[in-house]
Amino acid sequence: MNINDITSPADLRGLTLGELQVLAADLRKVLLDKLAAHGGHVGPNLGFLEATIALHYVFDTPRDKVVFDVSHQTYVHKMLTGRMRAFTDPAHYDDVTGFTNPDESPYDLFALGHTSTAIPLASGLAKARDLQGGTENVVAVIGDGSLSGGQAFEGLDYAAELKSNFIVIVNDNQMSIAENHGGLYDNLTLLRDTNGTASCNYFRSLGYDYVYVPYGNDIEALVRAFEGVKGSTRPVVVHVNTMKGEGYAPAESDKETFHFSGPFDLATGSSPAATEGYDDIFAEHMLDAMSGDDRVVVLTAGTPGAIGFTPGRRERGGRRFVDVGIAEQQAVSMASGLAKGGMRPVFGVCSTFLQRAYDQLSQDVAINRQPAVFVTFYGGVRGMNDATHLGFFDVPMISDIPGILFLEPTCRGEYLAMLDWAVAQTGCPVVVRTPAGRIIDRDGDFAVDYATAPYEIVERGDKVAIIGAGNFLQLALDAAALMRDKGVTPTVINPRYVSRLDTATLDGLRGYDTVITLEDNSIDGGFGQKVAALLGDSPVKVHCLGLPKAFPDRYDARQLLADAGLTPAAVAGLVK
Amino acid sequence: MNINDITSPADLRGLTLGELQVLAADLRKVLLDKLAAHGGHVGPNLGFLEATIALHYVFDTPRDKVVFDVSHQTYVHKMLTGRMRAFTDPAHYDDVTGFTNPDESPYDLFALGHTSTAIPLASGLAKARDLQGGTENVVAVIGDGSLSGGQAFEGLDYAAELKSNFIVIVNDNQMSIAENHGGLYDNLTLLRDTNGTASCNYFRSLGYDYVYVPYGNDIEALVRAFEGVKGSTRPVVVHVNTMKGEGYAPAESDKETFHFSGPFDLATGSSPAATEGYDDIFAEHMLDAMSGDDRVVVLTAGTPGAIGFTPGRRERGGRRFVDVGIAEQQAVSMASGLAKGGMRPVFGVCSTFLQRAYDQLSQDVAINRQPAVFVTFYGGVRGMNDATHLGFFDVPMISDIPGILFLEPTCRGEYLAMLDWAVAQTGCPVVVRTPAGRIIDRDGDFAVDYATAPYEIVERGDKVAIIGAGNFLQLALDAAALMRDKGVTPTVINPRYVSRLDTATLDGLRGYDTVITLEDNSIDGGFGQKVAALLGDSPVKVHCLGLPKAFPDRYDARQLLADAGLTPAAVAGLVK
Repeated sequence: MNINDITSPADLRGLTLGELQVLAADLRKVLLDKLAAHGGHVGPNLGFLEATIALHYVFDTPRDKVVFDVSHQTYVHKMLTGRMRAFTDPAHYDDVTGFTNPDESPYDLFALGHTSTAIPLASGLAKARDLQGGTENVVAVIGDGSLSGGQAFEGLDYAAELKSNFIVIVNDNQMSIAENHGGLYDNLTLLRDTNGTASCNYFRSLGYDYVYVPYGNDIEALVRAFEGVKGSTRPVVVHVNTMKGEGYAPAESDKETFHFSGPFDLATGSSPAATEGYDDIFAEHMLDAMSGDDRVVVLTAGTPGAIGFTPGRRERGGRRFVDVGIAEQQAVSMASGLAKGGMRPVFGVCSTFLQRAYDQLSQDVAINRQPAVFVTFYGGVRGMNDATHLGFFDVPMISDIPGILFLEPTCRGEYLAMLDWAVAQTGCPVVVRTPAGRIIDRDGDFAVDYATAPYEIVERGDKVAIIGAGNFLQLALDAAALMRDKGVTPTVINPRYVSRLDTATLDGLRGYDTVITLEDNSIDGGFGQKVAALLGDSPVKVHCLGLPKAFPDRYDARQLLADAGLTPAAVAGLVK
Repeated sequence: MNINDITSPADLRGLTLGELQVLAADLRKVLLDKLAAHGGHVGPNLGFLEATIALHYVFDTPRDKVVFDVSHQTYVHKMLTGRMRAFTDPAHYDDVTGFTNPDESPYDLFALGHTSTAIPLASGLAKARDLQGGTENVVAVIGDGSLSGGQAFEGLDYAAELKSNFIVIVNDNQMSIAENHGGLYDNLTLLRDTNGTASCNYFRSLGYDYVYVPYGNDIEALVRAFEGVKGSTRPVVVHVNTMKGEGYAPAESDKETFHFSGPFDLATGSSPAATEGYDDIFAEHMLDAMSGDDRVVVLTAGTPGAIGFTPGRRERGGRRFVDVGIAEQQAVSMASGLAKGGMRPVFGVCSTFLQRAYDQLSQDVAINRQPAVFVTFYGGVRGMNDATHLGFFDVPMISDIPGILFLEPTCRGEYLAMLDWAVAQTGCPVVVRTPAGRIIDRDGDFAVDYATAPYEIVERGDKVAIIGAGNFLQLALDAAALMRDKGVTPTVINPRYVSRLDTATLDGLRGYDTVITLEDNSIDGGFGQKVAALLGDSPVKVHCLGLPKAFPDRYDARQLLADAGLTPAAVAGLVK
C-alpha cells in the first residue's frame, strides 16, 4: 500500500507479511530522506523500524499501551499513527517533536526524553489496569543502553511482582549512544551467543519469562514473537537482537556518529565538519590536565560525545577515562569514591541528565565534603531546547546543596581557569557550568582562588549595578552600553559563583538606586532571589531577571529571551 | 578477652575461632544492653554481629577498605574500632552517631545514611587503587533490602568492569525495613534454597564470581568464606544468609518492629505504647479515602512504617497499598503511570528519601502534568536530625519544578483538607508536606480550592506582616503576640503553598514597613527569597528567616532555631 494511505495502525492489520516487508522498505526510504535533510536520531529509528511495524501490527494500539523508553526511536511509530506527513513533506518536518508527546497523539502516552523510565511508567499503567479489571496489553520498549540506568532495574524488579500481563521489549542493538559499559552487557552477549538459551539470564533472575528473537529486523520473526507474548498473563521479556542503523551502510558502520546526526549527505553519509565547540575545548583541556597530573580521571555516564570525548580522545584518556554507562547516580558517587581514594575526578555531564543524581550530590558528595568536580554542559537558554532536555534547572537544583561551589564562567579563559582551579583544589566539591552559545573571549584576571574570590567588578559605575552571571555577563555589558548612552554609568559585575553571595560586594551596593540580576537559568531558586533577600532590608530596588519557571518545548531562544525581558534594551529600560 | 581491651581490630587477629565466639556473645550482651536503654537499629546490628567480627578478623582494616551500605549496621564495627566505651558506658552512649562517620574514625570511610550507595562509593575506591597500583582489598557490605535501589544495581553493573579485586558482601536477612518487594527476592530465595547452586543467579548475570554462606551467623563459616575471597583478583559477591535480630528472641520474631526501636524492656521486648502521630493520622485518613474511592492507591518505597502503614493497615489497604521496595525512582514514576491510568496515587515518603527522585518528579510527573500526590514526612527542623536524614531541603528541591503545587499545612485540619483536595483534583501534581512536631488544631476554613486559593490572612493588622509557612505559622502567631505587647499589630499570613506566590496579597503589602517570612526549611531556595524578589522594587523591608543551608548532625532543635533567629522574641525583635 501507499504509505500515505496509512492513517492509523488499523490500516496495517489487513496486510500480509510480504506486504509489510514492502512497507518497511518504503518507510525506510522516506525516513532516510527526512533524516538526511533534517537530522535526528538516525540509528535508533532505522534499527527499530521493523519492530515498530510488528508492534502496531500485532498489538491493538492504542487500546494496548506501548511506552517507548527515551522515545527517540519513535519516528516510525509517528509515521504509522497519523503523522505521516511530518515525514513525507519537508514543509511539515517540524510538525512533530523528536519524542513521544501526548499533545500530538493518543498513541503517545508520555512525554519522554530521559532514559530508563519506560518500565516504571508502564508498571503504573499495568497496575491501574489490574485494579480496574482491564484486559489490554501493556508493553514497555527499552534499548539495551538504557538498561544500565538504575531506574530501569527498579522498574523491572518491581513489575515482576505484578504477576500479570507486562511485556518488556528489549531492543538490543549492542550499543548505547556510544559503546555499552557494565557487566550486564556480557550477559546480553551470552544470551545472543546461545540463542537465548543460557541458563544464567539477567531477566529470568528478576522473575521474567523470556523470549529471544535473533533476527530483530525480520518482520516475520518479530510478528511471531509478539503474537506469542500477546495476552501473556505473566511478566515477560522479549529480547530482540537488532541492527542499529539497519539498511543504511554508513549508519551501520559508524553507529556512534549516526546515533544522532544533523543533516548529512545521503549518498556518502558525510556531514559538514563541525566547528570547535566547548565540548572540544573541555576534552582537550582535560587531556592536557591528565597528562600533567596522574590523579585526574574524567568520567562520563554514557554520553562521551556530548563532552567532546570522541573515540580518539577516549583512547588518549586510556584507563583514566571512565564511562560508567547511562548511570548518573553511579558516576556521581563513584566520583566521590575516587576523590576519597586520592584521585581528582571530573564528571562531565549534560545539565539535564545530572538531575538524576540530586541525592548523590547531596549525600555522597556534599555531606562527605569530597572535592569531586562536575562539569555541566548545555546549561541555559542556548542548551538543548526540547522540554525534556532543558538546562534551566541546574542552578536551582544544585546551588542550594550545602558545601558545593557552583561556578559560572563568562568566557573561554575563565572557563579554563575555573577548570584548572577546580581540579587543583581539594577543599570542596565544585560544579563548573560550561558556557553555551558562541565562544567568547575577554580579558580578565581569572587565575584567582575561587573559594574566596569576591565578585569581579567588570565595569565600575554608580547608582545602578547589573550582575550578569555566566552566559549573561555579555547581556549585562550590552545593557550597560545602552544605559551609558542615556547618561547612566552602571557597575557591571561578574559574580563568578551562584551558590553563595559575596556579601561584602553586595553590601557595597546598598547605597545604589537599582540592582539588576541576570541569570541564564530558571529565575525561581536562582541567585537573583538570594540577592534580593540579602538587600531586602535596604532601600535599593532589586530586579531579578532569568528564564521562566516552565518547560517550553522546542522554543526559539531569541523569542524566549525577549519574553523574559532578557534583551539589552529591556534591561536598560528598567532604569528610568 | 575482655571486650574493653579491644582498641582496634588488630586485637582480634590473634584470637582463636573459639575465642571469637566467646567475644561475639560478650559483644551481643553489651550491645543489647545499650539498645534496650538507648534505642537504635536493633535487628540489623544483631544480625551482622558475627560477620562484622569476621570482616575485621580476616581483612586488614583500615588498610583494606570496607564501605557499609546505609551504615545502620555498624554498631559492632564501632565497638571493634576504638569506640567501645560508647557502648559499655551509658554516659558515653551518644559519643558516636548511628552511622559511619569519618570524623569519628579512620575506619569509617564515608558518612552514609541513604541506601544503595556503598557499591558505587567502593567502586571509586577500587578504581583509585587500581590506577595507583595499590593492593588493598575493597569491600562493600550491602543488605538484601538495599539491593532494590537502582543505585545499587548501577554500582554492581559498572564495578563488574573493574575486573579486579572488588568484594561485595550481601547481608541477606530476608528483610528490608519491612518485607522485601521485587522479583529479585525470588532469586535470592532460590539461591538460598539451592545452597547457592542455582544456575540462574542475579549476581553472576552481572559478571560476578559468587560464594554462598548458608550460616551467616556462624563465625567459622564467615571467616572461611572471607578468607576465600580475600585478595581476589576478580569482582565477587559473598552472599551471606543471616538472621535479622539474631540472638534476641523478640527481635527475631518481630523483625519489622525491631528494625529500629526506641528504648525497650530487655526481658520482654515491649516498648511504651506510641502516642498517635501524623503517620497514624495519614494512614487512617488514607484508608478512609480508599474505602470511599476505588481509584485511590497508596504507595511506599520500602518504608511503610514511616507513613503509618503498620502490617494491619497494609492488610486493610489490600491491593491498593503498594510497596515497591526501596526504589523511590520507581515509586514516583509508577505514580505517574497510575495517574495516567486513571487512578489517584498517593506516594507517602520521608522528605529526605524523596531526594532520590528529583528527575522523576520533573520529567515523569511535572512535564507530563500527571496529578499524582506526594506526601512527605519528617520535613523541617522537627524531622530526623541525622545529617544524612535532614528534612531541610524538600522545599528548595521541589518547589522550583514547574507545575508542581507544594502545599504546607499548618495544622491537622488543614492537613486533612489538603490531602482530600489533592486526591480529589486531577489538575496537577501536588506535594503535601506532613506537619512535624506536636499536633496542632486550629479553626479555619480549610475546604478551599488550593489551585486558586489566596494566602490565608490569619490575623489582620498593618505596617508589619509575618508570613509563616506550615509548621512555622505558630511561630508567626507567637511573635505577633509579642509585637502586640509592644503596640504593633502585625498581619499574620498562612501562605498555604510555597511553590508560587500569591502576588495579589503580596502586592497589598507594598505599603507596609516590614514583611517577615518564616519557613521550616533551608532558607536558600525557599519561598522567602521569592517574596523578597517580588517586593524587591518596593520600599518595604523584607526579612527572610529559615533553617541554615548546612548539614548539622544530631542537632538540638531548640538551639538550631535560636541560632537562626527563629524564636518569637527574635522575630518580634526585627521590628523596632
